[in-house]
Amino acid sequence: MTTPDYGRAFALWRQAAGAGWDAYVQHDFVRQLAAGTLPRDSFLHYLQQDYVFLLHFARSWALVFAKSDRLSEMRAASGIAHGLLNGEMPLHVEICGREGITEDMLQQTPESPANMAYTRYVQATGYGGDMLDLLAALAPCVFGYGEIGLLHADSGGPYGGWTATYGGGDYQRICLEVGRLIDSALEARLGPDWPALPRAATLARQFAQATQLEQGFWQMGLDRT
Amino acid sequence: MTTPDYGRAFALWRQAAGAGWDAYVQHDFVRQLAAGTLPRDSFLHYLQQDYVFLLHFARSWALVFAKSDRLSEMRAASGIAHGLLNGEMPLHVEICGREGITEDMLQQTPESPANMAYTRYVQATGYGGDMLDLLAALAPCVFGYGEIGLLHADSGGPYGGWTATYGGGDYQRICLEVGRLIDSALEARLGPDWPALPRAATLARQFAQATQLEQGFWQMGLDRT
Amino acid sequence: MTTPDYGRAFALWRQAAGAGWDAYVQHDFVRQLAAGTLPRDSFLHYLQQDYVFLLHFARSWALVFAKSDRLSEMRAASGIAHGLLNGEMPLHVEICGREGITEDMLQQTPESPANMAYTRYVQATGYGGDMLDLLAALAPCVFGYGEIGLLHADSGGPYGGWTATYGGGDYQRICLEVGRLIDSALEARLGPDWPALPRAATLARQFAQATQLEQGFWQMGLDRT
Amino acid sequence: MTTPDYGRAFALWRQAAGAGWDAYVQHDFVRQLAAGTLPRDSFLHYLQQDYVFLLHFARSWALVFAKSDRLSEMRAASGIAHGLLNGEMPLHVEICGREGITEDMLQQTPESPANMAYTRYVQATGYGGDMLDLLAALAPCVFGYGEIGLLHADSGGPYGGWTATYGGGDYQRICLEVGRLIDSALEARLGPDWPALPRAATLARQFAQATQLEQGFWQMGLDRT
Repeated sequence: MTTPDYGRAFALWRQAAGAGWDAYVQHDFVRQLAAGTLPRDSFLHYLQQDYVFLLHFARSWALVFAKSDRLSEMRAASGIAHGLLNGEMPLHVEICGREGITEDMLQQTPESPANMAYTRYVQATGYGGDMLDLLAALAPCVFGYGEIGLLHADSGGPYGGWTATYGGGDYQRICLEVGRLIDSALEARLGPDWPALPRAATLARQFAQATQLEQGFWQMGLDRT
Repeated sequence: MTTPDYGRAFALWRQAAGAGWDAYVQHDFVRQLAAGTLPRDSFLHYLQQDYVFLLHFARSWALVFAKSDRLSEMRAASGIAHGLLNGEMPLHVEICGREGITEDMLQQTPESPANMAYTRYVQATGYGGDMLDLLAALAPCVFGYGEIGLLHADSGGPYGGWTATYGGGDYQRICLEVGRLIDSALEARLGPDWPALPRAATLARQFAQATQLEQGFWQMGLDRT
Repeated sequence: MTTPDYGRAFALWRQAAGAGWDAYVQHDFVRQLAAGTLPRDSFLHYLQQDYVFLLHFARSWALVFAKSDRLSEMRAASGIAHGLLNGEMPLHVEICGREGITEDMLQQTPESPANMAYTRYVQATGYGGDMLDLLAALAPCVFGYGEIGLLHADSGGPYGGWTATYGGGDYQRICLEVGRLIDSALEARLGPDWPALPRAATLARQFAQATQLEQGFWQMGLDRT
Repeated sequence: MTTPDYGRAFALWRQAAGAGWDAYVQHDFVRQLAAGTLPRDSFLHYLQQDYVFLLHFARSWALVFAKSDRLSEMRAASGIAHGLLNGEMPLHVEICGREGITEDMLQQTPESPANMAYTRYVQATGYGGDMLDLLAALAPCVFGYGEIGLLHADSGGPYGGWTATYGGGDYQRICLEVGRLIDSALEARLGPDWPALPRAATLARQFAQATQLEQGFWQMGLDRT
């Protein structure tokens, strides 16, 4: 198994997160999803929570936009936030619809604690800090789905559509773009030797904490809580 | 002269701002612009500062997106922020280019105090409060340009392109859309009788203060400071 | 068992949270604490996490201060934030010290997911909204400890010091003060009929969600996770 | 004339601000204040605006507290914010009272554009960035008053009380404390070589922009606008 190359920050943060990263990308939910053995109810519970998640995720990318001070960063963040709202969300609604979960049900989903935990961690970190803090907290979601997708792109089975999406070229290109955005944002502010600065430890910790909360998101799917 | 109908909140806030509103939309800069007597250097100074302004304006609309909790609001805000970045900004760069102001010059514009004053007022109000506070501070810019545009749409002359743009259908539609967004956001949170709540006075004051700072923006153009 | 009277908002929000409120204030962790049967390790785990919690709690009250626009609110929030830092935190360090948990250990506590979940929910809600949103998210902690303290003030036993503190006059006065702060902040912004406004449902939901995450905090103590 | 030694960041930022710093600390308002020739009405106008300023200044220091993640920083920021509210503000009210400006008049002061410009710049910079951005924007106020006070501590005359306060030991100690807070916050995050990082230029620009807006505050006093 090779680690995807989403850039320098990801490589460093992933390594620093250590076993926490593996516990996230190799979580039982993910294994069962890839193996096709995940109970349908778990998948549906996850899908429904993911709708609420996507709203918060889009708002968080909008916050990246608001907190950027370079035009290229604003463009990248706007593209992602806008794309989430106008591309990924309608697609998600459609996928849920096929599973019998109507848009009305989606909008009335009671948000699970694990969902609140990760999404609010991202937002609190982003509002409380600057754009880099926000990106470090967002990164585990973007890259984790990318790594999982790559690993299981061809798994097929009942959830093969899901893994093919995240393992596919479109999503992998987003991961590469976000990787470049993060690396370039770091270097533009902290210089090429940023990993040696004390702040690098804070960013790595934010990545690791967000990773831990993402792991809780999978567990929520498994437990249907 | 009729007042444009951009909705209920605008009508109330505009009235509450009183003479301050007139001092803004009938500022000498605007009169001279419409009459074609505005010194070229004033217009160019304004254009150059407006580039920096647009960046902050787009970021502020991204913050509306981040602070919305209704999908329709997120969509509207994202559309505006994304459109500013990918439509209005390139157009602005092109217009400036025709006047001999290169993109490089635009990016190195030293931000004038009046520019900082309005843009940071909007952002401080938005971060410090909720989406409604932010919208009240953004409104004078959106609607003021609309009202000025309507009034002088056919003024022609050396700056006739500018007035025609803001008086034109595309921009007027944006004003109507923002008017609906604000009215609907207010009603969804504060109910149909929101103008009777104490909070209405705070929102009106934010609108009036932002209007006062927008007036300073015109003065900056006139003074080339 | 009577419900403590911490004001109008608390009464409404508590009722709206329904079974979620009971699940929080009557959590097994609390019952065992009052009965003296809580495993020592659970209590120590809780104490250590509570140190990290208090830092975030103090910062959240500082945010109330930053987001207030009335002098009386700023004074109340500053008093609480300042008191947490300079009164409650040193006391907490002392109590932990007696249990063999040094200040150094406290500062190196790895923050548990349940701890992140509640504290970041409060901050994300506060930054993303206005002072009222922030207060609604802070309220379950302040008032829940007050209600638990009142109920078990005389429980005695190995954890009798804890329950006596929160059931005691000093802490109960803080609850009353915070109750008045919240009621007065609501009325000053939304008028006396605020419970009838749509926004009241949002505030009640924020209170209920934060309550759910506080419940997770007790569970963390029990599970030592 | 010697430059006060408020630490490393101040020395660098002050130098980078260049003529803008001199234009602020040697502004005509300040010269006339020290010479005793400042019109009484200008001083009273300044005092009244300064009341509104102090509220925003205290809130901004509360935001430093909220955005700190080190206990020593939280303590320092809380001390300043709390001291402003409970020490400097009552004193300010008392001084104004002696000049015939009642507390009621103070609370109804219409905020001048120059006042909004500086205070909102600080808050927008602070919310939009992290604690360092906020400190860079706050620094010109703290240190500028210190430098002016030192220079004119013994000027005497009708405004001798003002200059003696800021030139006095108590205020100078605050400047030293804030200088240490900033230097230590920078080093703890960006390491000892932070002035060589790209981010140093951003911080210096924020300091320079805030200095420019502080200059506008003096001009407002002179113009009574």
